[in-house]
Amino acid sequence: MKVGFIGFGEVASTLARGLLDKGVEVYTCVDGRSPRTKKIADKIGVNLTKSYLELVKVSDIVISAAIPSQAINVAREVGKQYKGIYVDINNVSPSTVGEIQTLLGNKKMVDAAIIGSIRKKGLKAHIIASGVYAELFARLNDYGMNITVIGNEVGQASSIKILRSSYTKGVSALLLESLYSAYKMGIDDQVLKYIAETECPEFSESATSRIISSPFHAKRRSEEMDEVVKLISENIDPLISKATAEFFRSLSRKMDKLDERPRNIKEIFHLLDKMNKD
Amino acid sequence: MKVGFIGFGEVASTLARGLLDKGVEVYTCVDGRSPRTKKIADKIGVNLTKSYLELVKVSDIVISAAIPSQAINVAREVGKQYKGIYVDINNVSPSTVGEIQTLLGNKKMVDAAIIGSIRKKGLKAHIIASGVYAELFARLNDYGMNITVIGNEVGQASSIKILRSSYTKGVSALLLESLYSAYKMGIDDQVLKYIAETECPEFSESATSRIISSPFHAKRRSEEMDEVVKLISENIDPLISKATAEFFRSLSRKMDKLDERPRNIKEIFHLLDKMNKD
Repeated sequence: MKVGFIGFGEVASTLARGLLDKGVEVYTCVDGRSPRTKKIADKIGVNLTKSYLELVKVSDIVISAAIPSQAINVAREVGKQYKGIYVDINNVSPSTVGEIQTLLGNKKMVDAAIIGSIRKKGLKAHIIASGVYAELFARLNDYGMNITVIGNEVGQASSIKILRSSYTKGVSALLLESLYSAYKMGIDDQVLKYIAETECPEFSESATSRIISSPFHAKRRSEEMDEVVKLISENIDPLISKATAEFFRSLSRKMDKLDERPRNIKEIFHLLDKMNKD
Repeated sequence: MKVGFIGFGEVASTLARGLLDKGVEVYTCVDGRSPRTKKIADKIGVNLTKSYLELVKVSDIVISAAIPSQAINVAREVGKQYKGIYVDINNVSPSTVGEIQTLLGNKKMVDAAIIGSIRKKGLKAHIIASGVYAELFARLNDYGMNITVIGNEVGQASSIKILRSSYTKGVSALLLESLYSAYKMGIDDQVLKYIAETECPEFSESATSRIISSPFHAKRRSEEMDEVVKLISENIDPLISKATAEFFRSLSRKMDKLDERPRNIKEIFHLLDKMNKD
């Protein structure tokens, strides 16, 4: 079994190391990549090819785990010339998956999304996959991976992932809006406490970390929410998703002016106070 | 200790029964109320007054636990003529609490909100209270009640309650919007499952019950969200709350045409399908 990785960041290098340990022949191409990436590839002992074209011609399973723009560029470069199946595991929207599928000539493509944490679970991180050829990808479960085939259509896995993460973004926006207002009334601690009482014991902690992370990722989140709006609007008026996208866009405009990085909720509220006065 | 109840529905009758058991003298006025309410008051053995004016003149603590319109009417009727403290425990917005406070001549008023479930916990249901005189109300803890004083300002307790419940409404709208879209793609079960994986163990169950209850209470929820929008817009652009209000308004318009009552999520999705076609 030969597995080739497009991209060699955290996801690819973690899976590569795990698969090598299980006796899989692993390939990648580090042409034009950073010295750091080259060093990691060298240390893990992965086989190197001179080009992406060579990579996809030698691999039974190609796993694309790159940044979205690279994922599209490589797909454009290799076209239909891959030998086995081509798995897109990038964190991209279903429409980008569709674009990649077109560039690859609608051949044996699998849509995949990481649901668990690669950092915490390594090779065992839960991955969902969809498409007619997803079962072929799931054969890597024999080599220690944790892949669940969830449907026959390319786009389903990435849709599940994007809708799941839009839930998290919506909750973050909802909490930040309500709690900032509560903070202005001097009751933010109590509102959070009484919401947590009806939710679950871990709620306060996850809510806090979601609020704190919101300002720094506001721009990326607003862009991701724009993708969600497109997806949802095919079926229903995307009232909440649109408001969430707008919320993060407005937050990112405010954060552009920042040079401090707030470390807790109160600091975020103070900053919003300051910015609302400007 | 003499406690008088304005209104004698589930909240008032449950608290009255509990306080009577603890030796408190309990009063209410059932003038003009339904035969059922009169029967309950009789069965519990509560003391009856001929008018609300008599009720507030005899009580050390008046607890108003009525529907909002009745709460306002009684406050208008009795004005400043009450002897002790006047606790508003109705499920009303902070602005209605302010209106009642004005009608009562800004005397000894306490703002209170039930956080726990009266049905499940009875006299022990958690109640939060705010206002300068809230500590006087909290003396009822000596008679088995579970009151926490959370601040010195009338309006804080009802604001906590309304912001807490706006969180629940926002989450319900967010889930219904995302999951209906997922359902159209044939992946609703998986999206719910994978959201639940990152949330907490009880998530699926609470999400399901929130979605199922949404259509029936859509009109009331949209009105309650209008109150939240007013409250939040004093401090921040209420993007999410406004979208949530609009979501429930749109849902209630759809539900107006209904004569079936869906019993599970799939039935709600089917109904939305049918209505979107109409």
